[in-house]
This record gives sequence, structure tokens and C-alpha cells, in this order.
Amino acid sequence: MAEEIAAPRVRARALDLPLGRFRPGRFNAITDVAGVRVGHTTLIEGDGPLRPGKGPVRTGVTAIVPGAGNIFMERLHGGGFVLNGAGEVSGLTQVMEWGLVETPIMLTNTMAVGAVSDGVARYMVDRYPGIGDEHDVIIPVVGECDDSFLNDCRRMQVGAADVRSSYDAAARSRGATSPPPEGAVGAGTGMSCLGFKGGIGTASRVTGDGYTVAVLLLTNFGERDRLTVAGVPVGRLLPAPDMSAAPPAGSCIGVVVTDAPVDAAGCARLARRIGLGLARTGSTAHHGSGEIFLAASTTCRFDRDGAPEAGPRVAGRGLDPLFGAVVDAAEEAVLNSLLGSVTTTGRDGNTSEGLDPAVVSRLLAEAGHAGH
Amino acid sequence: MAEEIAAPRVRARALDLPLGRFRPGRFNAITDVAGVRVGHTTLIEGDGPLRPGKGPVRTGVTAIVPGAGNIFMERLHGGGFVLNGAGEVSGLTQVMEWGLVETPIMLTNTMAVGAVSDGVARYMVDRYPGIGDEHDVIIPVVGECDDSFLNDCRRMQVGAADVRSSYDAAARSRGATSPPPEGAVGAGTGMSCLGFKGGIGTASRVTGDGYTVAVLLLTNFGERDRLTVAGVPVGRLLPAPDMSAAPPAGSCIGVVVTDAPVDAAGCARLARRIGLGLARTGSTAHHGSGEIFLAASTTCRFDRDGAPEAGPRVAGRGLDPLFGAVVDAAEEAVLNSLLGSVTTTGRDGNTSEGLDPAVVSRLLAEAGHAGH
Amino acid sequence: MAEEIAAPRVRARALDLPLGRFRPGRFNAITDVAGVRVGHTTLIEGDGPLRPGKGPVRTGVTAIVPGAGNIFMERLHGGGFVLNGAGEVSGLTQVMEWGLVETPIMLTNTMAVGAVSDGVARYMVDRYPGIGDEHDVIIPVVGECDDSFLNDCRRMQVGAADVRSSYDAAARSRGATSPPPEGAVGAGTGMSCLGFKGGIGTASRVTGDGYTVAVLLLTNFGERDRLTVAGVPVGRLLPAPDMSAAPPAGSCIGVVVTDAPVDAAGCARLARRIGLGLARTGSTAHHGSGEIFLAASTTCRFDRDGAPEAGPRVAGRGLDPLFGAVVDAAEEAVLNSLLGSVTTTGRDGNTSEGLDPAVVSRLLAEAGHAGH
Amino acid sequence: MAEEIAAPRVRARALDLPLGRFRPGRFNAITDVAGVRVGHTTLIEGDGPLRPGKGPVRTGVTAIVPGAGNIFMERLHGGGFVLNGAGEVSGLTQVMEWGLVETPIMLTNTMAVGAVSDGVARYMVDRYPGIGDEHDVIIPVVGECDDSFLNDCRRMQVGAADVRSSYDAAARSRGATSPPPEGAVGAGTGMSCLGFKGGIGTASRVTGDGYTVAVLLLTNFGERDRLTVAGVPVGRLLPAPDMSAAPPAGSCIGVVVTDAPVDAAGCARLARRIGLGLARTGSTAHHGSGEIFLAASTTCRFDRDGAPEAGPRVAGRGLDPLFGAVVDAAEEAVLNSLLGSVTTTGRDGNTSEGLDPAVVSRLLAEAGHAGH
Repeated sequence: MAEEIAAPRVRARALDLPLGRFRPGRFNAITDVAGVRVGHTTLIEGDGPLRPGKGPVRTGVTAIVPGAGNIFMERLHGGGFVLNGAGEVSGLTQVMEWGLVETPIMLTNTMAVGAVSDGVARYMVDRYPGIGDEHDVIIPVVGECDDSFLNDCRRMQVGAADVRSSYDAAARSRGATSPPPEGAVGAGTGMSCLGFKGGIGTASRVTGDGYTVAVLLLTNFGERDRLTVAGVPVGRLLPAPDMSAAPPAGSCIGVVVTDAPVDAAGCARLARRIGLGLARTGSTAHHGSGEIFLAASTTCRFDRDGAPEAGPRVAGRGLDPLFGAVVDAAEEAVLNSLLGSVTTTGRDGNTSEGLDPAVVSRLLAEAGHAGH
Repeated sequence: MAEEIAAPRVRARALDLPLGRFRPGRFNAITDVAGVRVGHTTLIEGDGPLRPGKGPVRTGVTAIVPGAGNIFMERLHGGGFVLNGAGEVSGLTQVMEWGLVETPIMLTNTMAVGAVSDGVARYMVDRYPGIGDEHDVIIPVVGECDDSFLNDCRRMQVGAADVRSSYDAAARSRGATSPPPEGAVGAGTGMSCLGFKGGIGTASRVTGDGYTVAVLLLTNFGERDRLTVAGVPVGRLLPAPDMSAAPPAGSCIGVVVTDAPVDAAGCARLARRIGLGLARTGSTAHHGSGEIFLAASTTCRFDRDGAPEAGPRVAGRGLDPLFGAVVDAAEEAVLNSLLGSVTTTGRDGNTSEGLDPAVVSRLLAEAGHAGH
Repeated sequence: MAEEIAAPRVRARALDLPLGRFRPGRFNAITDVAGVRVGHTTLIEGDGPLRPGKGPVRTGVTAIVPGAGNIFMERLHGGGFVLNGAGEVSGLTQVMEWGLVETPIMLTNTMAVGAVSDGVARYMVDRYPGIGDEHDVIIPVVGECDDSFLNDCRRMQVGAADVRSSYDAAARSRGATSPPPEGAVGAGTGMSCLGFKGGIGTASRVTGDGYTVAVLLLTNFGERDRLTVAGVPVGRLLPAPDMSAAPPAGSCIGVVVTDAPVDAAGCARLARRIGLGLARTGSTAHHGSGEIFLAASTTCRFDRDGAPEAGPRVAGRGLDPLFGAVVDAAEEAVLNSLLGSVTTTGRDGNTSEGLDPAVVSRLLAEAGHAGH
Repeated sequence: MAEEIAAPRVRARALDLPLGRFRPGRFNAITDVAGVRVGHTTLIEGDGPLRPGKGPVRTGVTAIVPGAGNIFMERLHGGGFVLNGAGEVSGLTQVMEWGLVETPIMLTNTMAVGAVSDGVARYMVDRYPGIGDEHDVIIPVVGECDDSFLNDCRRMQVGAADVRSSYDAAARSRGATSPPPEGAVGAGTGMSCLGFKGGIGTASRVTGDGYTVAVLLLTNFGERDRLTVAGVPVGRLLPAPDMSAAPPAGSCIGVVVTDAPVDAAGCARLARRIGLGLARTGSTAHHGSGEIFLAASTTCRFDRDGAPEAGPRVAGRGLDPLFGAVVDAAEEAVLNSLLGSVTTTGRDGNTSEGLDPAVVSRLLAEAGHAGH
């Protein structure tokens, strides 16, 4: 089974949360940056006890196409940052050295990184026949979190077809009139965050200069006790779970995209601010958490057969509004990943509880948020 | 004038803030780690218009002696991290390469780093006659923030005598029966943070394993609009200031010390978590902010004339409680730096407003914190 | 076709090169470190024009098992360094964060990293049924260079079976009475270096303290003009090639293993010295070169279910002999990769010329090396 | 005593060494990059036994003004790299974060870094009255090596007057018709390198595109046994010294300047290649060696009151000739620092032997270099 799910969901903004002063973009999503598209392939199969190699399956693939053009030929300036390196974004080393993003950015589960990387390589080789001949070989960018609490990660269920379907879903989403699906979809299908069901979350901000800064996260980090929603310690205010909660460790892969013309060094600095947003929701960057972040600018290109585009750059203190926007959008994207997810049961009956928007709303009201 | 001021102050804990689940140490201060001592030299002189090179002076020096022994001979494992490098901790490169702290850690204002470094060098040469002969030369560790909003930084007021007096104050504080002074003292005298008067703040936590983890900060970062106290957006809830507030940029130097036996790589990871605590109070790590952090373990030594001590280490998942403790203590240390400061007027009548504990208390109550 | 080739070859030492003062280990190879094993799977198929996706094939897989025990359960302290990041070692981020090596280290061609990573994941899941259940998921360590000058990299020829065969070859090599094959074998099959046929090379040194330090390289870097053999500018002394030489860019993956008890931070410092050895042979770390290095200590373990081993460590100035040994062994390993290779023709008749030992010997003699 | 010495000296190029294919610039020196100037203050005083705090003195200060304009207002893009961090370049963190050089680059001895930093701060405050008011405060860039083998480093002999005199010497050198002094001058006065007298060395290259790439080093690293001159193992070919040679550890600070328009990330990559040149002369980057490098581009500016200059950039593979030029110029600069120095006796009669050009010439001839 490989399908796209549009789960019923609430977004954080519906709860009237006070997250920063910048307004969100049209969809409050990474797709608010012109040209950026997102596609998911969600893999759900079987129930009951883990039969290693046979399921149950709760995983998927998410494809982010970070620009409007042909990312292979029209490479974007970008950068990365590792807050805690207990994880993997294949291709990160090259992104950081060259300051360039030249492949789509894929997300999946830990044990599927190789298969997805292989799938992207095959896909790009088909699409760009000159790879390895007149063009350089490529190194796919594939990030991961560990969904083995819900998913039979030994199944190695993800394959080249899933890569293509997620990429095709992204391509088809051009001109979408809603934000991309969030929560338990694509790579987020089996993830848990801050003691609840997590997964995919996104948010955006428009700065006073009119630049859009947008974040997409794959959330799988933290412990329930620290869950903080718009400053309210929701995790501590809730009763202890009556089912065994998701384990405290995990990871978070984050992607920032902006249409501000920011060079590679500036992109790396944008990426570094994602962690500050996660911290506001309760992250302590656990030992076992791969908190790894990428950033790209859609308006700073370095064409494969050309030279870096010359042009004005947002730099120096001009970056400060973008930094603030990253922190706010990252915080909201975590909440969207939680509020966008429903309770999910996976292998061995392990259950990751969906964070109930009504409960959050009540706790926020008690904390006087209506008055803010 | 060079004296120690024990300003009237309130500590965050008095407001019954819910900051994490670990209990603080005896004094909720960096001095809770056995052997760690702190001394301040506070320099206040003159008022009125800036007469470059003549004052007014609002600055100082803070000395942290990070272990019980002779730090030069009984070097401690340590590490560092740069969240945003628009600042300076001289000696940081060697701390990170060798994983060792072998001098006291000094804090002061930006333009005084050279003078303080020189003062530490002179002090240590006097005290350890073998430096540069049978012993290696040393590189002092001196961190800075920019206090030029209140202080005539062109005065270059800080000298070797101030280094010695702060160090001597630290030495004298052995056996102190209260936490070290906070707020507008020592290096914190002229600093501003999140739109209010900042400076020195400290806090500690004791983990379930009985380890003490403690943080001391020199806070000079952020903008009022983002000030967050225990999750409550105090900065936005307050009326706009009726005086010109401190400027939004700045820096934050942070120091973690623990008695857990953590090796150099682990110390670097502890240092990296300080930024997550700052984020919870409103930091977005501005372009112009030097957010630079150090960590040391008092129970992992590498004696100058010996070999690294062998012994059990806290490592792997065992670090997670320490990580959480750093985040919580850093958040609380920011609040202590604010609540421990009083309104301070400096050069040109520039005024940095003290954060009023009563106002904070009221806003927390309105946010339902009594119910937490 | 997937077989192991023991090509006729000469080793640098046979030319009586003066490379440092330390003596080599028994085999002058990475396998001199007790427990370390190496296995190759060499893939050669077809000739003539490139028929994208169909060949010719000149590639392979090399497996390095970096310790005597079960590397998954008996993890080794390790570290890494990126001299120039235009390449990939998947899993590097985690090695650097945790200071641990917990999988075999695999080498292959760029476009096969995903497939090899997937193959290792499958292999380890079969072997350790608890992965993703009572044990953490794993992130395979897979390094690459680009062999597309000789190889149809679009073929994606490498698969899980090749991973297993290289790993099995490593396992079978226990107790080998010769160094592992070098040159155009395994991952080195299609690589070129400094204008000649490169590939796999290894060398070792024994320090005065009796520690063995050994290096294995996958060489695919540099331009002929800069080829330097034991200080003699062989590249410039040779006539220009009468065939189109291998292109100047490329990469070099390097692995150091030692039986000295060196902690994670020390391993990272060992890794950093590999580049100094490459420089002596002519590397300038081209823009397009992935010069990425790993190190591990076989006597510093951190068992999966335990704590880090306590014990004496080689640290501080005690590392200096190890640093020198890394530089010397890396220089010699480059030469072994060249002298161990024969002229190889691949896709489109592209030919990478084997460096003729007789010619090198003559040039060395003319440079007075007999007198050294 | 504080004077400039123009010691009798030979430059490596006079020995007809084959160091790379690019031609040097006019003076084969860092001053070949338009606008770059160098000034030295050399401090020599007393002889005989060390009387701590009283001498003998063998030290100094070197000032590098990295651009033609007002470096404070017309900031240059730049970057840095730490090969081994057992040393100090104050201000490095900010150079790396902002990718900007905004002060002169000073060199001195380890224990004088604070005093020189303080001197630069005072100098700039005098020159730019707006510092700390309408302009940001500054963090001086000051690198060091340890000259305590020859110098009474406890003397703390260096002061603000020496900073000014070295800076003034640089200013006066505009329009010089010879390369700047090398060897035992300025900061190089008391340094030793590869078992001989070292100090200041410089060299330059002009690439095929007409860009000048130039290096200046303060050399104080390595052991005699590894001294390599143009590939010839001179250190091993020489008889053992009949006097106690300089100790094996030390440091090397390196500065690259180019007139190629290279952005901050590119500058950091240029800096990283200096170590490859050092390696060719015998560096193994000892534990105690601070091998720290900086780079700046004189044609990529970011004015203090403006925005980053837009314009074409040398990037991607276009950097490769610059990389090669850095490696070659760094190798030659080491040799110039050695050949430019004469035997120097300092405290306690400690003597650092000058490398005799005639001996080197003979050894090179025996190695057949005439035939190259």
C-alpha cells in the first residue's frame, strides 16, 4: 500500500497561539516560498505483533523540491547545521562544503536512507542522462528519523518506487490551494514527538521586508514531560499517559527555505536557528537525537554550467528578521506536526497518542492565552 | 572605584517558576559544584555625557575558578561551542582542541579582552614561575559582551589590578554561605538583555544520579519584544518602554560546570545545550550576538605533569539528564540575571531598565502559573 | 562477475623509499592492527562504448572491519574529519557526534553509496535480530569516490550481494599471511589518482611505544603534474601522457586504525593528519574532491549494553608519535595505491595508466635516493 | 630597543627550487596583492641567563594590513581554519562567523596576545572615534606562536607602542620596492621551525587567470628530522646538531590574501590549504602546535555602512588554481622563513641555528635538482 493520506487535522494557528510577531505566508507552510513543493508517500500495512521483516509497516517518504526550477541544473545556495549528530542527512557534507543544494531533499526512516538514496540516484540518472558523463555524479540529500517504535524498520519497506511516487506527488502539487499534508504522512507516518504522535509539520513567516521564510520539520524528538505549547507546559499539566508513551529519544530533521537572497554562509546560519525554535517546544537535543538542519535560498543560484549569480544579498544585520522568522516558524511547525497527527497504533500494538487540540486549547485558555 | 556590590535582588525561584523537574543545588548557583568560585570587580565611575576616554564607566570583571584545585596544574576536561560567533572567548580554540581548561575563566567587556588577557597572563606568570620554562606558556580564557550602551568602552578602564581583585574575590569566596552576586555586578555591570538590565545570572540542578550541573551566564542579548519568562511572553504583555530601551543585539557568554565525570567531547555537548535554554527566554541569536559557551567537569582531570585520569565516565544516554539540567539552569540563569539587576543609567543618560519582579509576578499569575 | 583479484603489484617499500623514521608493521598494512580485516568485491564487466545502464563496469566494494570483535556490540571509539567535503561518508555525522564506530566501514563508488548502505543495513538486521527493537537502529558508514571516468556509474551495478561478499571476504581473511590486495580492487577498481591508476592502498607504522598505526585509502584525487614520490616531482619529470589521462579532480577516503588507546577526540585528531600525508604526494584538495577521513581505536571500546571502558589513554604530547605515523603511513598508502595498480581501460576506451615502478625507480635513483 | 632589522638573507627561489608551476608575483611576497602592507617591530635586548621578568628579550610584533583601504570601514570578506588548535588567533571566531576581516592582522608571542590586542583596541579607538558609539566595538585579530625557547616570555615586553610602531611601519611600506623583511624579524624574532631558526616567511603566486595569491607565515613548528626542502629530506641528511636544537613543538600562523573575488566561504577554503603546504616541508601538526590560518580577499568588500558588494565571484572549480597556489606559496614561505633567518642566541644561551643556504644548495644538487 502506498497512498497519500489527508488526515483530519487542526493547525496550531487555529488555537490562536501567540508565536512571534511576523505574519505567516498564504498557507503558513514551506510551499509559501515560490516554487517549493512537497510530496508524501505513506506506507501503512498490517497490524499486531512484530514479525520481523514482515511488518507491521508505519513509514513513508517525503520529497521536498526546494526551488521552482530544475534543481540539478539550477542549483541553489544552501547550508546546514548539526545540533546533535545522532542521525543522518546523507549528502550533508557536500551541501556544507559547496554551499549548494542540487538534489531534492528526501525524508524517510533511518534504515531506509540507503534505499531512498539509491532511489534518488536512479531517478536522477534517468532524468539527466549526462550524469557521470558530461555532468558530475550526484550525492542525494536524504534525512531520517527512527520510527521503530511503530514501524517494523527491519522490513526495509521503502524502495525506488516510493521515492518516485513522493517526488511525483511533489511535482503534481504545483499550484496547490492548501498547505501540504502534515502529521502522520510520508516520512512522518511512524514518528513520535514529545510523548505524542509527531511527524511532518510546517509553517512560514513573511518579514517586514517581504521575504518569506518557511520551515518544514520531521519531528521525532523529546519527552512528554517537556512538551511546551506557546510557553504553556502542557506536558506537565497533562495526566500521565494510560498507555506506554513513545520513548523519549528520537530526532528532528529541519529544512528552511527562503526567497530572500542569502548566500551559503547565511543559509548555514539560518539552519542553525531551527534548534532555537525546537527548544521552545521542549527539545533538549537528547544524546540519541539527530537534530540536523538544512537551509536553501531560492533566489541565490549557481547554475551547473555557469557561475554564481551576482546580485544583492541579504547579509549582516539584515539577517536578523530572517533569524527570528526561522525560530518562530520552527516552533509552530513542531506544534503543527503534533496537532496534525492522530493517535496511531503500530507494531506490537505500540501506540503513539495524538495530541488532542481540545485539550491543548483548554490548557491554553487556563493559562490566560485568551488575554494575550 | 573598584568594589563588589551586593545589589538588592530577587531570584527567579522566588517567583515560583516551573523550570524543569530537577531540583536546584544548595545555592542554585555555579558555586554548588564543589570547588567552583566566582569573584566580581565592579567599575562604576562618573555620570552624564560620554566624554570619550573619560567615562562614564559602567563595566567590570568576573572571575570563575572552575575547580577546587590549582587549575594550572590540575587541568580539567572541558569543551566549547559557538552558537553565533559575533564575539570572543580568547583561548577557546585551545580549549576545544585539547579538551582542557587550564586557566580561570574571565568575563569582561569587549574592548577590555586584551587587557584582561594580559592581566591573567601576568598573574599566572607571577604565581607559576615555571611558565615559559619548564612549563608551557598559557592562553587565558576571556569572554566578553559589549556594554557600550551604558559604558564608555573607549575608556579601556579595565586593567591588571581589576583582574587580580576579581580573582582574589573568587578565592575569598570559598566557603560562602550564599550564591554569588548576580545582575549588574562584575562583567555584568553594563550589560542589557531582552530589553532590560541584564548581566550575571546563575542557576544549578541536581540530577537523579546526584550530579550537580550549574550554569553562569553573562547576558547581553535579545530584544524586549521576545522576553519570555517561564513561557509567558512578558515582553509582549508589557507596555512599550517610556525610555529608549537597550538595543536589541548583544551577546551571551555561558559557562557550564559539573561534578559529573564527563570527558572533553561530552563537555562540548553540554556547552551546546546552553543555547536551548537561552531560546526559551527569547534568544534568536542575533547576527551581532556572540553566543559562545564553555563547559568543564571538575572530576575529569588531566594533570599537567601526568596523564589523563582513568575512571568511569558519564557518557551516551547517561548524558541526557545532564543535557536537560543545562537547558533548565540556563533558562533560569537568564531570569536571575534580569531579576537580579536594578535600573542602571550610564553614559549619555542611557538607561537600561531593571525588570520589576512584582510586574513579572503579576503577569505570571495572570497566566495561571499559580495553578501549575 | 564479482570476484577478488590479486593483481600483480609492487609496493612502495620495494623501491626503498625514505618515508619517515618509524618501521612498518608486519604487513605494512591496516591489517597489522590486531583484528582488523579487509575484504574486496571487484566488479568488471564489458568493454567499449558506454551504453548507459549497461556498462562497461569497473567498480566494486571494499569492507573494512575495524576491530577483532563484534563491531555492533563492541563499539570502538572513533572520529572523523572533512578536509574537503565534496564527497560522502554516510554515517559520518553520528561517528563524529558519538565518537563511536559501530558498523563496518564500506567503500564504493559515489552513485552506489545508497545501495551499499542499504545492503549493510540488511546484513546487520539479519545478523542482529534485535536492531530496531531492543537495540537502536543503525546508520552504516559508507564512503565513496567517483569512478565514472572508467565505470558506467549509471549502471548502479552494486547491490546487497556485493556488500555481503566483501564483508565475507574480510571475515575469511582472518589469519591472512599477506597484506590485503591493493590498487585496482574492490572500491578501487575504477579509481584514478594523480594522473595514474589509483585505488586501494595501505601502510602501517609501529611507534617507539609499540603502538601500531595503520592507514587504508581509497585514492582518486589529484593531477599528474603534482605527483610527488618521496619528494621527487615524478609527475613533472615524466613526459606528458600520450593518452588522455584521468581527470584532475576526484576524492580520497582515508581510514586510520590504531591499537593505541585513543579516545574519540584523539581519534578525530588522528584522522585530521591523513591530509598532511596526501599533501606530500601532491594533493591540493581540489574543489571537487571529497577528502574525508575516519579513525578508530581498537582498544577504546564502549560496549552497546555497557559503559565506556575506563583505562589509561594515550593523550596530549603522547599523541605526537601517532600523528607522525599517520602522516607517513598515509603518504606511503597513496604510493601503494598507485604502484599496486595496472593500466586499466574502461568505458569508451578511457584508460587510466598504471604508474610503472621501473620508471619511478629510475627517477628516484636520478634524484640521488640511493644515497639517502 | 625596538627597531626594524633587515637581516642578510637568501630566499628559497635563489636556490632554484621547483615549487609548483605558477610564477610568483613581483616580489614573491604577500605585498604583491595590491594594497597589502607588512610592518615589523623587532625587540632584542640583553643576553645570558634568564632573569625572569628582566630578559633576555627576543620577540616582536608584525602587522599585516590586508587591504588598500581603511580596513575598519571597508571590511574584506575572509575566513579561517584551525588545523590544530593549540594556539590562539584572537578574533578568529568573529572572522569565521561574519566572514569578514575588519582589523589589521597582528602577530606576536603567546604571552603578548593580550597586550597586543589591547594595543590594537586603543589604536583603533583613537583612529575611529565612533567605535562604541555610532560604530560597533571591535575585536582585534592577533595570532601568536611561543618563542620562549629564546625569549623571556615572562617579561611581557610587548606594549601598545610596539603595536603602533609595527602598524606605522606597515603604513610607511606603501610603495616599497622590495619584499618585506623575513626570518628573525617582528613576531618571528624568537621563533624556531623544523629544528632551525624560523620566523616570518612569505611567497606569492599568479594564477593563469591573473589573480595573485599570497601567503605570509609565522613559522614555529616541527622537528629537524622531518625538514623537507623541495622534496629533499634535508633534516635527515644533515648531521645531528652539535648544540641543543630548538624543541620540536610550536605553532604556525598563516595568512592568505588574494585579489581574486572570493566570498567568505571560499576564503575559508583557501585558508584550509595552507596546512597542505606546511605538510610538504615536514609538518605533522604536533599536539602542541597552533596551526591556525586566515584568508581574505581584497576585492570582496562589505562596507561597514553599506551592503555586501555584488559582483562576479571566483567559485566552484574556479577555485582550483587558487588552491594550488596557496599550497605552493605556503611551502615556499616556510623555506623563506628558514633561509631568511640567521643563527640566533637567546635566553640561557639557547641557540636556534640558521639553516645554511649553502648546505641546502649542496644537498639539493646531490638530489639531482639541477636536472629538474
